[in-house]
Amino acid sequence: MKNTFGSKIAVTLFGESHGKAIGAVLDGMPPGIDVDEDFIARQMSLRKSVGAISTARREADEVKILSGVFNGRTTGTPITFMIENQDQRSRDYGELAYKARPGHADYAAEIKYGGFQDFRGGGHFSGRITAGLVAAGAVAISALREKGVTVGTHILSCGGVRDRSFGDVKSDIDSLDGREFAVLDTSKEEEMKAAIMAAKSEGDSVGGCLETAVYGMPAGVGEPWFDTVEGLLSHALFSVPAVKGVEFGAGFAYADMRGSQSNDPFRSENGRVVTETNNCGGILGGITNGMPILFRCAVKPTPSIYKEQRTIDMRTEENTTLVINGRHDPAIVHRARVVVDSVTALVLLDMLS
Amino acid sequence: MKNTFGSKIAVTLFGESHGKAIGAVLDGMPPGIDVDEDFIARQMSLRKSVGAISTARREADEVKILSGVFNGRTTGTPITFMIENQDQRSRDYGELAYKARPGHADYAAEIKYGGFQDFRGGGHFSGRITAGLVAAGAVAISALREKGVTVGTHILSCGGVRDRSFGDVKSDIDSLDGREFAVLDTSKEEEMKAAIMAAKSEGDSVGGCLETAVYGMPAGVGEPWFDTVEGLLSHALFSVPAVKGVEFGAGFAYADMRGSQSNDPFRSENGRVVTETNNCGGILGGITNGMPILFRCAVKPTPSIYKEQRTIDMRTEENTTLVINGRHDPAIVHRARVVVDSVTALVLLDMLS
Amino acid sequence: MKNTFGSKIAVTLFGESHGKAIGAVLDGMPPGIDVDEDFIARQMSLRKSVGAISTARREADEVKILSGVFNGRTTGTPITFMIENQDQRSRDYGELAYKARPGHADYAAEIKYGGFQDFRGGGHFSGRITAGLVAAGAVAISALREKGVTVGTHILSCGGVRDRSFGDVKSDIDSLDGREFAVLDTSKEEEMKAAIMAAKSEGDSVGGCLETAVYGMPAGVGEPWFDTVEGLLSHALFSVPAVKGVEFGAGFAYADMRGSQSNDPFRSENGRVVTETNNCGGILGGITNGMPILFRCAVKPTPSIYKEQRTIDMRTEENTTLVINGRHDPAIVHRARVVVDSVTALVLLDMLS
Amino acid sequence: MKNTFGSKIAVTLFGESHGKAIGAVLDGMPPGIDVDEDFIARQMSLRKSVGAISTARREADEVKILSGVFNGRTTGTPITFMIENQDQRSRDYGELAYKARPGHADYAAEIKYGGFQDFRGGGHFSGRITAGLVAAGAVAISALREKGVTVGTHILSCGGVRDRSFGDVKSDIDSLDGREFAVLDTSKEEEMKAAIMAAKSEGDSVGGCLETAVYGMPAGVGEPWFDTVEGLLSHALFSVPAVKGVEFGAGFAYADMRGSQSNDPFRSENGRVVTETNNCGGILGGITNGMPILFRCAVKPTPSIYKEQRTIDMRTEENTTLVINGRHDPAIVHRARVVVDSVTALVLLDMLS
Repeated sequence: MKNTFGSKIAVTLFGESHGKAIGAVLDGMPPGIDVDEDFIARQMSLRKSVGAISTARREADEVKILSGVFNGRTTGTPITFMIENQDQRSRDYGELAYKARPGHADYAAEIKYGGFQDFRGGGHFSGRITAGLVAAGAVAISALREKGVTVGTHILSCGGVRDRSFGDVKSDIDSLDGREFAVLDTSKEEEMKAAIMAAKSEGDSVGGCLETAVYGMPAGVGEPWFDTVEGLLSHALFSVPAVKGVEFGAGFAYADMRGSQSNDPFRSENGRVVTETNNCGGILGGITNGMPILFRCAVKPTPSIYKEQRTIDMRTEENTTLVINGRHDPAIVHRARVVVDSVTALVLLDMLS
Repeated sequence: MKNTFGSKIAVTLFGESHGKAIGAVLDGMPPGIDVDEDFIARQMSLRKSVGAISTARREADEVKILSGVFNGRTTGTPITFMIENQDQRSRDYGELAYKARPGHADYAAEIKYGGFQDFRGGGHFSGRITAGLVAAGAVAISALREKGVTVGTHILSCGGVRDRSFGDVKSDIDSLDGREFAVLDTSKEEEMKAAIMAAKSEGDSVGGCLETAVYGMPAGVGEPWFDTVEGLLSHALFSVPAVKGVEFGAGFAYADMRGSQSNDPFRSENGRVVTETNNCGGILGGITNGMPILFRCAVKPTPSIYKEQRTIDMRTEENTTLVINGRHDPAIVHRARVVVDSVTALVLLDMLS
Repeated sequence: MKNTFGSKIAVTLFGESHGKAIGAVLDGMPPGIDVDEDFIARQMSLRKSVGAISTARREADEVKILSGVFNGRTTGTPITFMIENQDQRSRDYGELAYKARPGHADYAAEIKYGGFQDFRGGGHFSGRITAGLVAAGAVAISALREKGVTVGTHILSCGGVRDRSFGDVKSDIDSLDGREFAVLDTSKEEEMKAAIMAAKSEGDSVGGCLETAVYGMPAGVGEPWFDTVEGLLSHALFSVPAVKGVEFGAGFAYADMRGSQSNDPFRSENGRVVTETNNCGGILGGITNGMPILFRCAVKPTPSIYKEQRTIDMRTEENTTLVINGRHDPAIVHRARVVVDSVTALVLLDMLS
Repeated sequence: MKNTFGSKIAVTLFGESHGKAIGAVLDGMPPGIDVDEDFIARQMSLRKSVGAISTARREADEVKILSGVFNGRTTGTPITFMIENQDQRSRDYGELAYKARPGHADYAAEIKYGGFQDFRGGGHFSGRITAGLVAAGAVAISALREKGVTVGTHILSCGGVRDRSFGDVKSDIDSLDGREFAVLDTSKEEEMKAAIMAAKSEGDSVGGCLETAVYGMPAGVGEPWFDTVEGLLSHALFSVPAVKGVEFGAGFAYADMRGSQSNDPFRSENGRVVTETNNCGGILGGITNGMPILFRCAVKPTPSIYKEQRTIDMRTEENTTLVINGRHDPAIVHRARVVVDSVTALVLLDMLS
């Protein structure tokens, strides 16, 4: 299947940027879970972001729940989230209808869908489609909290500025809650924003890196082959637009380590089994070991920039150039962060079900 | 499901390191594909590796095909590969039966399986289980070649020594074919081996990084959400024991780039659409764009080392120490390489089916 | 997963009888298929049925397509059908909220969902949910027609009156197109309706049997194990409310036959391989043989009747009696028919994809 | 996927009648379940059957467990059952290699696999492949018994002779345990066998009907849409060779009933909720209601008969005749019974997991 992910808890995404509506169907949630529409709305607003560094489309992004909730609680049947698009104009897209934007999916989509795709605003490839993920993820985050599992993501680096890594995982996650521009060392926020504005002033964009921690996962979750914790998380995380790398624990730094440094010694501490270090990111043999799960996602720079770019005309396959006007974000990393939290919650809730 | 991966082409892994046999069932292969048992045997020998840097168990690793092949060709029904274990002794495992080896899955498995797991030699977590993947992968590699798609992986770094990256992808892949210690710059082979031997002499182990290229994939393969090329490949690649990070194209280097550098300009060249650079690793919006697929896997150091390590006794959860005797590899990266090729071939063949 | 069915072509159902909206997401449709909203509306009206024998709720049942269609054609991305409920009143359901209606899912749902289910009007179990199936099925029926495959279902029996069986399959299917009360021998229509009215006048209901034929399926479709044509069709058909039996070809009549009668001899005829009889219903070894697919579904009487019935109070589990007031159909078989066509089309289109 | 069925508990079938081995991989079993190899062997012998009415191939059918069992208990990893074929001769199959046997899958397979299928003895379509199902099913039956769930199937009719239906379900199921020719009214055994022998003496074969009961299933299992109890069971049951119809409870008899007869009144009895009748076969809205599950499978006559039959030559598609020599069973229904039990147990165990 294509637009559905998950086993017992599964999410199906639908919609196009300029179609009637976008949304998600979340199936498999147990009955009786409290559905907090205010929390959903707050998560949605984190995805939109605001201020000078963002130029998000002015959509209300109001989430309507069409099914699966009765008297404020899940019924156990599919929950459908719908977000109506206000901008459905079929205005003239000009050359964007046939010139492939570098770094975007336009050319790949043209080949795959044979020209029948809804190209307006990126269509089904638009980052806007993640709104459905965030709505569904909000319910998953609530359900995980009831199990004592919390998820938090911060901007580890952006535009060359680097935040500190997770320290005390539990309190660090709590400190990120509801933050619009999520860094652990708050002194880095202005530096990062300045780097973003610098790129913007040159008609350019920046990339970054997101770091995620999960606190409270019990040991023994995951499978040794294929449905490893790393495998399931990465499968879903690569659907977050612009994510091009996922590493767990020490990740690529493992390459230059020796076993005597990288192995995490076990220790019994206050009646709990812990490891002295957490290079493995809480996962051994694909299975949780009870320590916090830690991973990082590489986020590529927003491909929409104001500079002129070389490309082709997809009608004739002739070489040409392209300037993308309109509004686009000089950075996406701060908005991608709530999407990463949402995807992580959906995957882990499924693994715990 | 747990030990099965794939949609139209699916592989199911079974077996324990010291059980009767290990193997794989490969289902969904089209009928009429030539099955070359010599090629399978050569791939199996690459997984075992040899020489001073490896201390692989002396198993014949003879692959028996139980089903799905008739007159040397696939029938279209499930192909079962069985590799009998010669070492099935239930000898005394001593403290390895109850002391959790750091960096291994022992503790996670104890929690998950409640003590019923076959702990001998790592059981179902053993790297030996990848033999089934390599056998199945060999048939997938052959089937891909009939479609003009070739896959190659080299050791990008190991023990601090770095190979060059892919240049001319097609000929570089060809140059790796059948190589026991696969580097592109052959002058690096002895350097890397020396680094491995240095670690070995200290009772230690080294990690590394594998880089993979795929040549000949048509544009338009993959899905925008969930079943992206990156998502499906990484899901499977994280099952290769010791892989802790996967990045595509520029990967984590994207974090410090600007959009004007990272976007790959399109160009029409000799009647084909190409990109001038390939930072995206041949994948845009989760879908192939016709350029070579490029990715890297971080491989952690072999967790079995000769040095004394701190751990717990899983019966009492008391702190203790452990020394692992017996033979173990100071590096796994050169042996993991054929497993990465195999997994890549299985995933891509499924996506093309 | 729960409310999703299909492999390459998959449908996800959502909604409750008295919630905001019901609907379906149809994923995997190839791009470029013509979407005829008039045809969808006609199929929807067949599901509602009319006249004295039906007392269907007066809903407009207008289908809104939220995604996946652009310029009147499928884009290749998920197609979302939404039908808003007009009757969303949370009026007093009285004893229907806690007395289990015999023949209905109320008690099973109470146990499964622990009281959190939306019980109003049957909630997620309501026959109304099939509206989403019919909308999605209409697109599948159109796509099948482009491949030369047609599907038709008639009321083989109802209230003790029996229609003739399929004769010339192709023309019989065509004759059923758009028929509100679908019988092959039109002289039976009034007889059947009279039997239904007789039951109605006694506050009772009748069951029946539907017979389906599929013309134009190529030979060689289906799998020998598990994903047989019979297995996939029956899996989905048992979701049509009230279906309690599915038989293919001679079905249960096979039990009293001998092999010399039941085997269908092959014959070459005008350059095509056919069978002289079609006891196997076009399926051998789980795979189509090129003859028409033939099957029958047993439909139980509408469980909502006006007579007093013995049941329990689900709050106290004490014995009590129940009278169901309001409007309910004395027969469902004529309305179930378009649902069977829709489900059949969805399954077969998936098998051909 | 093709040869795999199940969600949390999944079985993968492999093998050809005259290949090296056949078998099954059973994945998802919880760790610690007792694996009784004697019970497996007894179930295997029920599948083979014996005596004058059966002419089963003289294979030892010894089941080797290759993986997933350690110290007599499941480990939680895939359990592989292998049955080596003793008859692997590639002898001359004569006209059976190219003449399509009526009632068999030969022609459908030729179209599907393009001539690459292993045609010897039916290949992957052989009833022999059910041996893997029976081995896996034996473990599922044991696991269900630990949960208080028992499954029993009897020959409701064969060759025109009819057994009584289930009465006291629990004791009736117990009475069927280990029975080679399973009828409830033992006076019918000789009558049925005589009917089979009569057909045999005429070179012909007979069909029949199997009836299954499941005792002890808790209420609340199953899903309202798609993964209904009926849908999942029928999906798998149609893989039992020769099954062409499945009906639950009153099944096709519902067609001629009225709602006032067919609805099963609820009643509270000794602190349990029961129904006074069980026309619904223990399933309402796709979900168990706590009463015994009841269903029947129609079994077509063995297609291999000694009489001359009309068919085609698959090389030339010319009309010809065929006489099938060798040994074949005049009835299959008594052997199919343990396969139905096995499949039922596998499906229900998965639904309870």
